[in-house]
Amino acid sequence: MVNLEVVLVELFVLMLLASIASVICKRLEVPVVVGVVLVGIAISNITIDGQSLYSMLQLNQEENQAVFEVFAELGVIFLLFIVGLETPLHELRKVGKVAAMVAVLGVVIPFASGLIFMLVLQFSVMESLFIASALVATSIGITAYVLKDMGMIETIEAKAILGAAVIDDVLGLVILSMISGIAQGSGTSLLDIAAVAILAVAFVLMVIFVTYLIPKSRAKAKEIKPTEHWHKHITPLPFALIVCFGISALASYLNLAAIIGAFLAGMLFAEFKDIWPAEEKLEPINEFLVPFFFLQIGFMVSLDSMTGEGVLIVAVALTLIAIATKWAGSWLGAKSLGKGSANIVAMGMIPRGEVGIIIASIGLMTGVLTDSLYATVIFMALATTLVAPYLIRWAIKRKGDWKGAFKGIPTKFKEI
Amino acid sequence: MVNLEVVLVELFVLMLLASIASVICKRLEVPVVVGVVLVGIAISNITIDGQSLYSMLQLNQEENQAVFEVFAELGVIFLLFIVGLETPLHELRKVGKVAAMVAVLGVVIPFASGLIFMLVLQFSVMESLFIASALVATSIGITAYVLKDMGMIETIEAKAILGAAVIDDVLGLVILSMISGIAQGSGTSLLDIAAVAILAVAFVLMVIFVTYLIPKSRAKAKEIKPTEHWHKHITPLPFALIVCFGISALASYLNLAAIIGAFLAGMLFAEFKDIWPAEEKLEPINEFLVPFFFLQIGFMVSLDSMTGEGVLIVAVALTLIAIATKWAGSWLGAKSLGKGSANIVAMGMIPRGEVGIIIASIGLMTGVLTDSLYATVIFMALATTLVAPYLIRWAIKRKGDWKGAFKGIPTKFKEI
Repeated sequence: MVNLEVVLVELFVLMLLASIASVICKRLEVPVVVGVVLVGIAISNITIDGQSLYSMLQLNQEENQAVFEVFAELGVIFLLFIVGLETPLHELRKVGKVAAMVAVLGVVIPFASGLIFMLVLQFSVMESLFIASALVATSIGITAYVLKDMGMIETIEAKAILGAAVIDDVLGLVILSMISGIAQGSGTSLLDIAAVAILAVAFVLMVIFVTYLIPKSRAKAKEIKPTEHWHKHITPLPFALIVCFGISALASYLNLAAIIGAFLAGMLFAEFKDIWPAEEKLEPINEFLVPFFFLQIGFMVSLDSMTGEGVLIVAVALTLIAIATKWAGSWLGAKSLGKGSANIVAMGMIPRGEVGIIIASIGLMTGVLTDSLYATVIFMALATTLVAPYLIRWAIKRKGDWKGAFKGIPTKFKEI
Repeated sequence: MVNLEVVLVELFVLMLLASIASVICKRLEVPVVVGVVLVGIAISNITIDGQSLYSMLQLNQEENQAVFEVFAELGVIFLLFIVGLETPLHELRKVGKVAAMVAVLGVVIPFASGLIFMLVLQFSVMESLFIASALVATSIGITAYVLKDMGMIETIEAKAILGAAVIDDVLGLVILSMISGIAQGSGTSLLDIAAVAILAVAFVLMVIFVTYLIPKSRAKAKEIKPTEHWHKHITPLPFALIVCFGISALASYLNLAAIIGAFLAGMLFAEFKDIWPAEEKLEPINEFLVPFFFLQIGFMVSLDSMTGEGVLIVAVALTLIAIATKWAGSWLGAKSLGKGSANIVAMGMIPRGEVGIIIASIGLMTGVLTDSLYATVIFMALATTLVAPYLIRWAIKRKGDWKGAFKGIPTKFKEI
């Protein structure tokens, strides 16, 4: 049995430190995310008498770890669900082409560049393939948070990022299945990879298709029996959660990111906003859970693993490549939105987050990556995530300056 | 690492079944609690091919179990915190004497009756002492839910129950430390027990004292610097959660129930309602988590353990004694509120819930209780909890009938 007293102490300390960090960040006008992630890094890395606060709080104990991993995951799932709720399908369709271009170019250019960079540094082909793959997939948890925090979630740029993230995730899945096939030595047949990809695409299209059908079928249903309000027996929040958990689990089962499922679920549920308004009730749940997502990102950073000779240099170089190539690819893809908007989209695609980390873990487990190469990827994944809030805010400010319409950082910004 | 996909599936299935149960209960006008607990019992007891849904969902896997135990515990902690928020201290002070009487008589009478009953049935003195102790402590999670659900949390009866529960918990703690001392064979000195009790009482009094001081010190603070609104930098929800977790953890550390701490924390935080309104934000978090509390109660029921010869008869007899004696003791204690109100208070004190279960577990672990006696106590604890919503609703209705003021079950009912 889990020790509930210990969990309460952990909740108390973590919430307290995260809250102090966010108050300080607000005063200093630093993104709150960054502050809370830094608190996470401090908790797991600063040691007193050889013990970090992380182990003093017993957060390294398996069951407690499970509890906070689930909190973190639910935090980012609810976040993307809410973002989905605020993204009407027809608006997403408008940016379909741009999103596809952003996704494809934002995958091809980083992959090619990463491969060449690693081969030039005389790493093996296998090692280079792995590192290149880890450069590919975008993790939009942080981006979604920053955009939402700045009241930007309803802009065309946000739509392009969200659409691209969905396509990106499918592409990432294909690369991941190829790579893990190669790593396990079995090699994966093209047919297997195609099957995985087709299932994922079919799932995404199906959810979008259902979302598209809902307004029509609801209009029809009203024609038939306009007086029977059966939906009033269903309370909005549990129903929203059921839809969110169900579609997220299904996405995860099909090897897509659970947060992509949550985003699609939100888009679907948005069609019922008028009869089941769940958004307001989800916000506080999110306010409770999201800090644990940021803390968790910090917990994963091991400063020790960066001390090896030359590790830090390769890691920083790889991070710069990750940022530059993802930016360039996405910018080219989004160019048709205008330079300022393309810049925002490109910055929003930069964070690698957990997807890079998953690929690195497979590399480590299968023995392809050494400890120091693993640490390098983790560094890149986290550094791109940490730097993103600044870059996104800067890009938004810069676009504002270009248009001459804004002084400082805009908080609501809806024109194209 | 915890498998997040599995957790999402578990969340989906549990939320779905709990929601279906609550929709059906509302239609049938059965208390929702009862329906959700029954779902919990079904999940852990109905087997298909020798497998229950509980094990099919991998809920018996250690880490998953930890996650849902924490959800359940947080559900009931937030519930009591909200109840505390709705209970001004000065109102609680009005019922101080009555609450003390309810607590003391509600402890003495069940203990004495249980002891005599078991000794008459020729159980050993040790066994009888354990069973008698398990009859003592009230667990007000369910009662608080029912009263809140019926809009009764601001009545004098609710205050008396809440006040009595706090005192009851201190008395329960004393008995628990005596019993576990005896069970461990070491015997506990009266001094040790006194120390435990004094610490607990000091903690409760200190929180109440701070709560009492807050309005005065706030008035003073305003006199000094009326213009500086430093509190606006602090967001209400995280701050409320920090206070809630901190005081709950402290209560738990002092061997009191964490929910008693949460209730006191709510009472304390209520003094800041005007500047940090957290209640509305806590409700949705609660709506999400509370079903897991009821499900968890159901999970703990093992129908198998009730099949031994004569077990069921003793269990039912003990349950009836538990109900009758707790009712009688509490009713005598609350008599001064009038017969109708005393009846409501007495019914509200009946559920034994987790406190009885903790005592039974100690008895089992130390070898004092046999498996079947353990099952008997678990049955009593759960049966009193399950039957309470009906009894409380009946008592409320009956009081209404007496006064001739209500038809059916009142939903708002504030007179004395």
